[in-house]
This record gives sequence, C-alpha cells and structure tokens, in this order.
Amino acid sequence: MDNKQEILNIAKKAKKASRVLAVVSETVKNKTLLCMADSLIKNTAGLIRANEKDLHQAKRRGKPSAFLDRLVLNEKRIAQMSESLKSVATLKDPVGEVIKSTRRPNGLLIKKVRVPIGVVAIIYEARPGVTSDSIGLCLKSGNAVILRGGREAINSNIAIFNILRRCLVKYKLPPAAINLVKSTDRKAIDILLSLKEFIDLVIPRGGQGLIELVERKSMIPVIKHYKGICHIYVDNQADLSLARKVVFNAKVQRPGVCNAMETLLVHQALVREFLPIMLNDLQAAGVEIRADAQVCKMNKAAKRATERDWSTEYLDLILSVKVVRDLKEALEHISRYGSGHSDAIITENRTKAKEFLTKVDSACVYVNASTRFTDGYEFGLGAEMGISTDKLHARGPMGLEELTTYKYEIFGRGQIRS
Amino acid sequence: MDNKQEILNIAKKAKKASRVLAVVSETVKNKTLLCMADSLIKNTAGLIRANEKDLHQAKRRGKPSAFLDRLVLNEKRIAQMSESLKSVATLKDPVGEVIKSTRRPNGLLIKKVRVPIGVVAIIYEARPGVTSDSIGLCLKSGNAVILRGGREAINSNIAIFNILRRCLVKYKLPPAAINLVKSTDRKAIDILLSLKEFIDLVIPRGGQGLIELVERKSMIPVIKHYKGICHIYVDNQADLSLARKVVFNAKVQRPGVCNAMETLLVHQALVREFLPIMLNDLQAAGVEIRADAQVCKMNKAAKRATERDWSTEYLDLILSVKVVRDLKEALEHISRYGSGHSDAIITENRTKAKEFLTKVDSACVYVNASTRFTDGYEFGLGAEMGISTDKLHARGPMGLEELTTYKYEIFGRGQIRS
Repeated sequence: MDNKQEILNIAKKAKKASRVLAVVSETVKNKTLLCMADSLIKNTAGLIRANEKDLHQAKRRGKPSAFLDRLVLNEKRIAQMSESLKSVATLKDPVGEVIKSTRRPNGLLIKKVRVPIGVVAIIYEARPGVTSDSIGLCLKSGNAVILRGGREAINSNIAIFNILRRCLVKYKLPPAAINLVKSTDRKAIDILLSLKEFIDLVIPRGGQGLIELVERKSMIPVIKHYKGICHIYVDNQADLSLARKVVFNAKVQRPGVCNAMETLLVHQALVREFLPIMLNDLQAAGVEIRADAQVCKMNKAAKRATERDWSTEYLDLILSVKVVRDLKEALEHISRYGSGHSDAIITENRTKAKEFLTKVDSACVYVNASTRFTDGYEFGLGAEMGISTDKLHARGPMGLEELTTYKYEIFGRGQIRS
Repeated sequence: MDNKQEILNIAKKAKKASRVLAVVSETVKNKTLLCMADSLIKNTAGLIRANEKDLHQAKRRGKPSAFLDRLVLNEKRIAQMSESLKSVATLKDPVGEVIKSTRRPNGLLIKKVRVPIGVVAIIYEARPGVTSDSIGLCLKSGNAVILRGGREAINSNIAIFNILRRCLVKYKLPPAAINLVKSTDRKAIDILLSLKEFIDLVIPRGGQGLIELVERKSMIPVIKHYKGICHIYVDNQADLSLARKVVFNAKVQRPGVCNAMETLLVHQALVREFLPIMLNDLQAAGVEIRADAQVCKMNKAAKRATERDWSTEYLDLILSVKVVRDLKEALEHISRYGSGHSDAIITENRTKAKEFLTKVDSACVYVNASTRFTDGYEFGLGAEMGISTDKLHARGPMGLEELTTYKYEIFGRGQIRS
C-alpha cells in the first residue's frame, strides 16, 4: 500500500472514531488517561531502549547537542510525561458545557454547547514528549488525533504510541482515536495537509521552517505556534528595582523558550541611572548584548545590533537592546518587529500602562511582570498544547477549551418561520 | 500604479487604521453608523443611477434574471440597507468586554479581554447590500475592512462606499478603516489573499466557485459560508401534524436560502400514513420531488433521485426524499451528504432527539422546529455576517462577537518566574 492510500485510510478511520469519541463519558476518558500514565512508567525500560536507537542514529547524522537533548528520553522525562497525563485526567471535561442558553420570543430554546473539533493533526519535530502530551489533551477534549513526528524520533514515537493505544483498547475506545503516521517521508506531510474532508485542524509544533511549510501547504485550518519575539519596555516612570528584577528574569531564567524576552526597550531618561546596572546584571549572567549605537558607546562589551537582530528569536543568552524616546517609539518598535506573543511594560503610570495594553496587538500583554508567565499552567489552564500566535479561534496558551468548538442545539414545539 | 502596489497600499493603510479603530469609543462608532444610515437615504437617487449603469451592463452581458434581481438597488432595498446600519448601532459594542478574569496564587491578575480581529477582507459577488452590511458590522466590531465585490456591481459599490466614507471623515475616523478594491481584475483577489502580514481574516460570500477559489488560494485564515444541504428526519415517533407543518415551512416558505431544507428523510413506518399527505402538500405548492425507488413507486409525479441529488443545494422548489429504516440510517445519510449547516429531527422520543443532537455534526441541530431559523436575527444576535459552516473560531450565524478575538491583559507587581 502506498503512502497516500495509507494516510487517507488513517484519516478516514480517525474521522469515524472521532464521532464515537465525542460522546465518551468523562469517567472512561479519565480511566484511559490514568492507564496511559501507568503504562508509560511500567514500560520505562522499553521506551529508553527504543529511544536509544533514535539517539544512535541522530548522533551518526551529526545532530547538534541541543537537538539530542530534545530527543532524549530518560526516567525523569518519562515520569514527567506520565504526570502530565495524570494532570489532564484531573482537569474538567470541556465537552458538553452549555456556553449560553437563550429562550427566544417564539419559544425556541437555543443552547450553545461545547463540542470537540473532530480530528486534529499534530505535525512536530523531534520531541517525543509531544506524542503523549498531544494524545492526552486530544483524548480528554474528545478529539481524534493524527500524529506526525520527525523521523529522528520515530522509534521513540512508535514505542510511546503502542503503549498508549493498548489503554484505548482496554477501555473499549476506538483504536483509531489516536493515530501515528509512521512514514518518515516528507511527502506524508503534504498528503495530510490536503485531507480537509477528514481533518478539521492542523497544529504544527516546531521550528520556523516547519511552521511556514505547514502554513503554505495546508488546505486545512492551521493554528500556529510561531515565534516569540517578546519585548519589555522600561518606562521613565518605572519602579527601577522592580524593572531590574523582571528584566533579568525574563531573559535569564530560561532563555530557550518562546516566552523569554528577546528585546529590551529602555526610555531615554534611563540611559544613565538604570541601563548600566541592568546591562551589568545581564552580562554577569553571560548575556550577550546587541544594541543600538548609543548603548554601544557606553557599554564596551555590547555589539552593534543589525536590522535583522530586532526580528530574531534568539532562544539563547543574547538580548537586543534599544533606547527609545518615549512610549510611542516603543509601541512602534513592537508593532514593527514583534511576533504577537508576549510583551511587557514596566511603569508606575496607569495611563501609559493602559495605552500599552490597548495598543500592543499581542496574545499576552503584561504590566510589571515577566513575560515568562505566558504558559498554560501559569494561566491556570492545567495543561497546554502550546501558545497560539494566531488571532482566530485560539490566542495565547491553548488548553482543553481551545481544542473544542461549539454547536447550537435548538429545541422547538413545531415553530415555523413566517 | 499597478494592481499589486495599489492593493498592497490599501492593506497597509487598513492595518494602520485598524489600530486606531480598535480604540474608538462606542459613541463615535454609533454616530458614524447613524450618519451612514441617513446618508444612504439622502443619496437614494444617486445610488439608483449608479446601479442602473451596472444593471445596463449586466443585461447586455445576458445575465439571468435571478442575477439581475440580486444586483438591483431600489428605494426599498436602500431603505433596508439604512435600517440595517441603524440596527447595528443599537447593538452592544463587543470590544473591551472582560470575558474572564482570574487572580493567580502568585497575585497576577489575568484578564481575557475581547478585542477586534484587525483587518477583515470580504470577497463577494453582485449583491451591493453586502457592501454596507459588511462596513456596518466591521465598524461596530472595531475592524478595518477591505471589500472586493463582483465587477457587475462595481458602480453601485463605489457609490455606496463613497457615501459611507464621508461619514468616517465627518467623525474623524481614519478613512482607511473602510476600503474598496476598485480593480475588477480577478488577479486582485489573488493579491489580496496573499497579504497575510496585513489582513487577519478573509470571508468569502457568494457561490460555491468563489468560496472554493478563496479557500484554495488564501494564505490568510478563511471563514467559509458554504453550502446549506439541510435535512429533516421525520421519525416514526413524530407528532405527524407538527411534522407536516415544519417540513412544509422548511422547504416552501423561502426555498432560495441556505437554511431551507433540501432533503427529507422519512422513517419507513411512515410510508403509508404520512408520506403521501406530505408529498401532496409539497407538490401542491409546486415542489418537484426527487426520490428513491420506493417513493417513486407510490408517487407518480416523483422523479428518481440520482446520487448527485443527495449532495445538491437546490435553492429552489425541489426536494430530495428518502425512506430510511431508522434513526441510524438517517444519521449515516446526514453524515455522508450533509454540509454541516442545519439539520432537524421531528420526534416525540427524547432519547432519539438526544442522539440526533449529539451525533449530527452540524452548526445548528433542531428538534421539532424548522431549519429556517438558522439566522443571526432569529438567534438574537441582531445582525449577521452570514452563517459559518466551518468549525474553527465561528460556527453558525456570525454576529459582532464572532468578528472579535481576545487578548490577555496581565497585571503584576514585579512577579518573576522561578
């Protein structure tokens, strides 16, 4: 059987399974999730063996150490995957919630009811943890899922998938509720992205290249988890000790994630009193500074930022720094170079804070706090399928609710339209 | 200036204007809407003259009478357009609504706030009323709009547009908040659909060909208002006099609209007692019946339905009729041929009603009422931008709320992540 036929079959079966899954009780879904969590732990040794094959191949192919780090499965990571499934089991089932209910003058009762989206395809790279996280979130939200992970993690993904699927079977759920495309051919992605009749949503997770590819080729709606070029603007009316703490945290605490700050914008009045101390803190923590001419003049270790720097997501201990005349210039900079993810203002002036909140067109806009809080857990969603930088359907952290849609259920007693 | 440059300029300016429009007060938006409503009435004569040019051209091109009917502007239609703008002015402004507010254990206050989407492009055919309706809805929801209507209505659209834009200027709103692409070249659509940096959402309104074209070519998220292949299933446990009334209404009251019934499914137990009377009612009202073999045998005027009939949106006094063994077969038929718009069950059995509501994957699912109620006004939304048959972001009737998205505003006092 060729690729195309195989993937088409998976999608058709997933669609069918999604109709069954949509009406499965919360109890059964939770039991299945707990079974999955247990099974991962019980099969730790087997998972590590499968993962070693992937690691061996990746090393032979000369993949960099950051890549290998994302790929590796060890006892700790498997325990985390298991915990994550358990925590999804504790979350409220979003399916069936009555979002709104209206009785119309003609007596019609109109209920807006939360329902699963249907079939969700997740296209990702070499992090095997995405396999179990996606399965857990989609199962709980009543969606069938089709996974297509990177070829470098294929043995790990197959091992995880097989373990989790056995729990579906145990609780008599349709096996096609979760699916893994085993073909590592790039064309498999193109085929998936064309099956709009059977797949309702595509979520790409990974680097810029993958996301752009999916966006360009998909015939199915896509929710993107794109770049996080996060800014902090320190205003002349900021509490400077608060600013010092927040800016440091946003860059240094975990620089490799999308909600870390990539650009610091500082009001011109702070060039002498605040900026030297701030840069000193950052440089002492190993942060490389790429800045405008004014900053470079006063800080010898700083490099000149190029035009490209302002729109680069470093994901590393590197920071762009720019002095701005005022809030207006800060807003213009963010509007031009931002990625609509997370941006913060540090100020004690309420009017300026309000203006920043309103004018910055990003998923998450902060006043006097670190951008690092943009995260499903920190927002109280319990779990997340990433951070949407799109504006339709879901924006910011995507939890279970964002994996649902709604339908209208209308109850009449013979009403007709005149 | 060529097409591409002109459209790019429009889109860039619209993006800029959208940021201004997003923070305009409800009062100013309402005054502008009322000015627009007045101006249409005052300029009735001029609008009719412009429309006559379009009608003249369309007749010369031999367009059918249904087409000419959609294109025509007369005093009554202009009054309707004006009324519609007035009614949008009375609706609650959705912008700024706090959807949810959470205080986290670390003290962070997280507000989920409703905001405009940004720039919405509407691509439509020859109904000039869409021009003013779209402008009214987008203005009230704080979105800049780019309109691209069919070339047959270009003179009418320009006339409407110029009148409405003067009101924007009068109330000091940015003129680029509303835009009309005057090029009637098909390529203009392709260019629009590529400008994902500046346009946030595309809504195609019109026939199947246009919608499929937009879906295929768009690099921007699309919300489709696609076919309405609406079903009514009359169960063996139906109240038959209720069924007779509702089925008749759903087909005959206004057959040319998307929420009219196109297929009647009847339980096999009703072939003798109910079906002959029902078909007689329908045929007396001029409805052509296209049915399965069993029905054709007992009703001499019925034609045999072809496979194609089950997936055809007639928008006319034609009805497909099929006898089914039971609810299960009805559900299978709807799942196979339905378009996810509106479907109804007529039954007194609550369990069956519940099963139908759950298993039919359509925007609107009815129990004992006519599908004709799927409509923004009937649902109490006050106005509508059509009926979404998509599942993401908006489903069913799209009102002002569906033209918005949200952002998170987060208020801290120096919180950092550890």
